[in-house]
Amino acid sequence: MDLPLHAIGFQVDDLSPRKVTGHLHLTEKACQPFKVLHGGVSALISEALASMGAHMASGWSRVAGLQLSINHIKSANLGDLVFAEATPLQTGRTIQVWEVILWKMDPSNSEKRLLISSSRVTLITNLHVPKDAEDAAQNLKKYYSKFSKL
Amino acid sequence: MDLPLHAIGFQVDDLSPRKVTGHLHLTEKACQPFKVLHGGVSALISEALASMGAHMASGWSRVAGLQLSINHIKSANLGDLVFAEATPLQTGRTIQVWEVILWKMDPSNSEKRLLISSSRVTLITNLHVPKDAEDAAQNLKKYYSKFSKL
Amino acid sequence: MDLPLHAIGFQVDDLSPRKVTGHLHLTEKACQPFKVLHGGVSALISEALASMGAHMASGWSRVAGLQLSINHIKSANLGDLVFAEATPLQTGRTIQVWEVILWKMDPSNSEKRLLISSSRVTLITNLHVPKDAEDAAQNLKKYYSKFSKL
Amino acid sequence: MDLPLHAIGFQVDDLSPRKVTGHLHLTEKACQPFKVLHGGVSALISEALASMGAHMASGWSRVAGLQLSINHIKSANLGDLVFAEATPLQTGRTIQVWEVILWKMDPSNSEKRLLISSSRVTLITNLHVPKDAEDAAQNLKKYYSKFSKL
Repeated sequence: MDLPLHAIGFQVDDLSPRKVTGHLHLTEKACQPFKVLHGGVSALISEALASMGAHMASGWSRVAGLQLSINHIKSANLGDLVFAEATPLQTGRTIQVWEVILWKMDPSNSEKRLLISSSRVTLITNLHVPKDAEDAAQNLKKYYSKFSKL
Repeated sequence: MDLPLHAIGFQVDDLSPRKVTGHLHLTEKACQPFKVLHGGVSALISEALASMGAHMASGWSRVAGLQLSINHIKSANLGDLVFAEATPLQTGRTIQVWEVILWKMDPSNSEKRLLISSSRVTLITNLHVPKDAEDAAQNLKKYYSKFSKL
Repeated sequence: MDLPLHAIGFQVDDLSPRKVTGHLHLTEKACQPFKVLHGGVSALISEALASMGAHMASGWSRVAGLQLSINHIKSANLGDLVFAEATPLQTGRTIQVWEVILWKMDPSNSEKRLLISSSRVTLITNLHVPKDAEDAAQNLKKYYSKFSKL
Repeated sequence: MDLPLHAIGFQVDDLSPRKVTGHLHLTEKACQPFKVLHGGVSALISEALASMGAHMASGWSRVAGLQLSINHIKSANLGDLVFAEATPLQTGRTIQVWEVILWKMDPSNSEKRLLISSSRVTLITNLHVPKDAEDAAQNLKKYYSKFSKL
């Protein structure tokens, strides 16, 4: 459904208005030339997950990202399993702010998460859906409901 | 060379330590479900172009993105031709800051650019290159020199 | 009118819907302990000037900052004369984005500006003005008109 | 010690390499013209607390802010008691990233915090201390130790 997200190999695991999660087995498709997770891919995942969450939290309205700020904390290497989780800081009537973190498990301590990146995505909701995109809205709803536990 | 950038259909046009440019014919591979440019793709392009520029401006040292902030200003639609340009705000010995803008031409005025997004990418330079990645550094240099007018 | 801005010694020079400018003779009131311009003061100036500009550009509606991102590029020292300029990147009906730069003149080249910081401020406009704040809106308009060249 | 922070009425409560906290009784000194907390003051507090924390966490080295990103979530009104807390996301040898949140207590539920703003501050550490600022470093250390529970 989200083709750029699909292209880099990301899989959505759960979708709800309170949390969106997924994971990525890191292959070259998501790496920069030095074989580590591409920082732009971390940003892409963040924007995508925040948009999905805001879409649901707004009652399926059309949303658009206004601003994204991301801090890259630790690198991830080819072969690593990367987890992502998006949660809302604010779900107002017009504006929503979501936090998205990416992490991997510490190989030397199976209970410790290592933070890869932390981002804030600011979105505007309740945008007009053009007539010729009404199908998209319907398909998205159907698609999301496969993941949602609501 | 930059596989995620390649996957969404982006083409680098010019590379130098003072400017990196490229373009994207917008297909579904770079769109979100409502058929407009995916905000995460704008971020990916920004991070990628800033990294290339910083890599050259640092004298081919290994660089890493620390922070990216992007404002999404105007949407771009399926079929649009999107241009990107990265220029340095700061090229210090340890830290570089690049501005990256995306724009399209105004269909009603062929001389007017419409700003799609504006971002700032903060990078750290002169990172250690691991032994097994020395080839990557060499290949990157060769690849970049194809575009560079230096 | 803007008391925190006044407290650090900042002076507004010009105000219009297309540009807000001002300057600061750097005293200890605006410095961090190492006697250089406090990064938080740069952010305060940026948020304040963007808010003034957005207030005018929105036709005197009430505005609120949603997001501020600032990159600190070069330091300014006690005694330096710091200039600030805010200009709009976007002045939409609901959302505005302003760029604010701070700079000083290069002591070794009187025509060259040295960039101190660059920021992006995202604001929402057309907020409701509570009854008991209608005076504030009027006073602000009167105050701004002193500076405006409109 | 931090004069701009002092000017707006902010009080530091605790200082350690793992957490910096403080509070502000909101007076007009920290408000914008509509009598709500000035967004630039939230940014100032964030930059100041993150710098103090990074200074301690780096073993008293000189630090400088590189980037600050702040999302304004909820407003605070004249008379409100605003709390601030800074904690590290990353304390690397060269780069640190701190999260700073501002909140107030929910008047209708004395156990619930209402988030006012959330920010990320990226800092560089281990900067050179000029000869004539060595006193500042000493004074800062003495001053901080009053608050520290270490």
